[in-house]
Amino acid sequence: MSLTNASPVDAAKAANGASRILATLPASARNDALTAIHAGLAEARDEILAANARDLELARVAAESGQLSQSLVSRLDLGKKGKWEDMLKGILDVRDLEDPVGQITLRTKLDDGLELTRVTCPIGVLLIIFEARPEVIANIASLAVKSGNAAILKGGKESTESFVAISKVISAALEKTQVPNDAIQLVTTRDAIQQLLDQDRYIDLVIPRGSNELVRHIKSNTKIPVLGHADGLCSIFLEQSADPNMAAEILVDSKTSYPAACNSLETLLIQESALESLWPGAAEALIAKGVTIRCDAKAKAAITSKISSDLSSKIEDVQDSDFDTEFLNLTLAVKTVSGLDEAVAHINVHGSGHTDAILTSSSELAEKFMSSVIAAGVYWNASTRFADGMRYGFGTEVGISTNKIHARGPVGLDGLTTYMYKLRGQGHVTATYGEGPGKKPFKHEKLTL
Amino acid sequence: MSLTNASPVDAAKAANGASRILATLPASARNDALTAIHAGLAEARDEILAANARDLELARVAAESGQLSQSLVSRLDLGKKGKWEDMLKGILDVRDLEDPVGQITLRTKLDDGLELTRVTCPIGVLLIIFEARPEVIANIASLAVKSGNAAILKGGKESTESFVAISKVISAALEKTQVPNDAIQLVTTRDAIQQLLDQDRYIDLVIPRGSNELVRHIKSNTKIPVLGHADGLCSIFLEQSADPNMAAEILVDSKTSYPAACNSLETLLIQESALESLWPGAAEALIAKGVTIRCDAKAKAAITSKISSDLSSKIEDVQDSDFDTEFLNLTLAVKTVSGLDEAVAHINVHGSGHTDAILTSSSELAEKFMSSVIAAGVYWNASTRFADGMRYGFGTEVGISTNKIHARGPVGLDGLTTYMYKLRGQGHVTATYGEGPGKKPFKHEKLTL
Repeated sequence: MSLTNASPVDAAKAANGASRILATLPASARNDALTAIHAGLAEARDEILAANARDLELARVAAESGQLSQSLVSRLDLGKKGKWEDMLKGILDVRDLEDPVGQITLRTKLDDGLELTRVTCPIGVLLIIFEARPEVIANIASLAVKSGNAAILKGGKESTESFVAISKVISAALEKTQVPNDAIQLVTTRDAIQQLLDQDRYIDLVIPRGSNELVRHIKSNTKIPVLGHADGLCSIFLEQSADPNMAAEILVDSKTSYPAACNSLETLLIQESALESLWPGAAEALIAKGVTIRCDAKAKAAITSKISSDLSSKIEDVQDSDFDTEFLNLTLAVKTVSGLDEAVAHINVHGSGHTDAILTSSSELAEKFMSSVIAAGVYWNASTRFADGMRYGFGTEVGISTNKIHARGPVGLDGLTTYMYKLRGQGHVTATYGEGPGKKPFKHEKLTL
Repeated sequence: MSLTNASPVDAAKAANGASRILATLPASARNDALTAIHAGLAEARDEILAANARDLELARVAAESGQLSQSLVSRLDLGKKGKWEDMLKGILDVRDLEDPVGQITLRTKLDDGLELTRVTCPIGVLLIIFEARPEVIANIASLAVKSGNAAILKGGKESTESFVAISKVISAALEKTQVPNDAIQLVTTRDAIQQLLDQDRYIDLVIPRGSNELVRHIKSNTKIPVLGHADGLCSIFLEQSADPNMAAEILVDSKTSYPAACNSLETLLIQESALESLWPGAAEALIAKGVTIRCDAKAKAAITSKISSDLSSKIEDVQDSDFDTEFLNLTLAVKTVSGLDEAVAHINVHGSGHTDAILTSSSELAEKFMSSVIAAGVYWNASTRFADGMRYGFGTEVGISTNKIHARGPVGLDGLTTYMYKLRGQGHVTATYGEGPGKKPFKHEKLTL
């Protein structure tokens, strides 16, 4: 890893050159580099946590004067229980995953002696722009090295001391490996983001990790493809046949287990015929966990008499704009719908294509919901919070994509690869094939992988 | 198909609505629509060819006055031998391909009763912008319907009569099927391209089919992902151990079988040690086919005494800019290199990532070349002209992509799909999983597809 004060253009150029070397390294060399990074970080624990403490100190002061949010301070803290250990374990987890590069995904005999293969390969150079969380640097470096991609990392200024400490260690660790030092670059230059976004000649993919505003800004200001999501407006449709206890538990988990996460619930759609049977119990469970419920008239009427009056302050009137709002806190927008069709139509207009669920006992309705909603994840009787690379079994993730192009949903190593076609012949020319005298057809024989 | 004079915004909106219905149709309904389109076109042959003759008449007049190129007139002609039949056959070929939608590509048991699947699905709405060739409308409509995508088609003004005639027939054919009429829209409004490119809310992917200038213009003027290529600058590296006859044949096929195609050869890199042994024979074969060879000093010196003087006008001096030029005609740029590393370095700087080949008897060098060149296709001892969806066995293609993201190389039905994750649970919540008391780990059991 280079810790560079070089210009963003030079960083991008150097990363591009390094990516070509990295792309030709065998899995063993890439895995060895991850072993070395892990060992280096483990050894440098104290100095990295000391650097992190200096970042934290400044951030706490800024938070007290209202310049930074408390949640940002919390995300910054590498000393938080389990965070350091998780970061180190993540590196070895990634190392031990199957090699995503060099996988043959298609093999066709075009003719005798002429064989086509489709082989997975790295994309090239990734640009990762992230805000406070310093452990991201180790996660992303691991995923990039494992998938054979070079990466340029640009972190938020709040975690500069932590980044610099971590990257010095990673840099020293890579020195002893075959992975070129320029393959992972940390750009610390101020105001470098726009210059990096202009390097579409050298950078192949941008992955922003941060606020909706950051992602939207990046999407509007680069020609490089952007992988990720601006909004995570997840909805659940509560159908009349759902089990009442299951419904309450899933709603509570989806809304309250981490309200600031992109996979948390923001809109609840209730079938009108379930307003009396299912909604009061679910509402009570949500309110008991501190959720403020913004209801339309019917949903409000169904619960006002059933919720004790000291909790009535938690019931508000919903505004139209609430259905387009990612609250990221304990507020939930609630709308009454006639049935599945109206629920699907609402989600396809107001949702963000992230993750949406149906709670129902009918497999027929569940399947209909899951094939009609346009989203990266569609769930039946499960919490929207499962939308996560670790939970999906991908080891870790670089982010969750709501793009329809390339990778969708939680993106692990697969999403950091592309493919190329290799054709091996023995002097074959195209003029041989076709219709008419002296021409022959292709064989197009599917070969086993 | 709607033949619309509606505003581009309304066309995009309507296509988006139709795409949601199309996405839920079973394969049988999509295939039936292709059968109906085929039958409709077969029946309307005479009136469509008459409309095409009117386009041709105007185009010939324009060509005579120099306003249109002869090659455009030729591409416009649906009556050319075999073209009509190929167009009709293509519809049935696509219909008979495996359904690209609903394929399960991953199945994981996250826990008892909690199963994750990854399922292929349509992307949504495609915008196809193309120039003269009227048969594209039938190809693209077939691929779109088969893959469950809605498509907006915007053709060049030279083929308006043909487009309108074909789209009327397709529209009438779709009336009798389950595919919504708005799923395939032909926009005939003048100057609609920029308005369509602005509809990133309703359109998911743009596929331009036309000149490099058209593609570059589109890439610079939309936030919608663009699939395709601006340049096809293909190179061949002639290594010293190559078989002389094979080398000459492959070079001739790559350069001369269709010089205007994107997969044709533009740059030849010759190993210095092959200048005396391989180059004179290859040069003679190329010149005999009418190729003008632009050589660097060494490559020129190696052949001037060996080529008869009446052909010497076909040998020119190369300029640096020639190595960045897609000639699209019978001109070839020739450069002498010391060996494989220099060849790879040249290609990775000057090539367009389309298709590049090595001619060699050494499998070791071939494999090194194929893992070092950054391109959608890397070939060993085969003509670059094999880069084509039909030749690859994909039935047909919507274009050839030099993107590294999403689809690369010739793009068939696969490239018109994305995937979604479906999670089926029985009330599962995320709070159950993790470390510590009362928590449990995920099972992450890989299930057979």
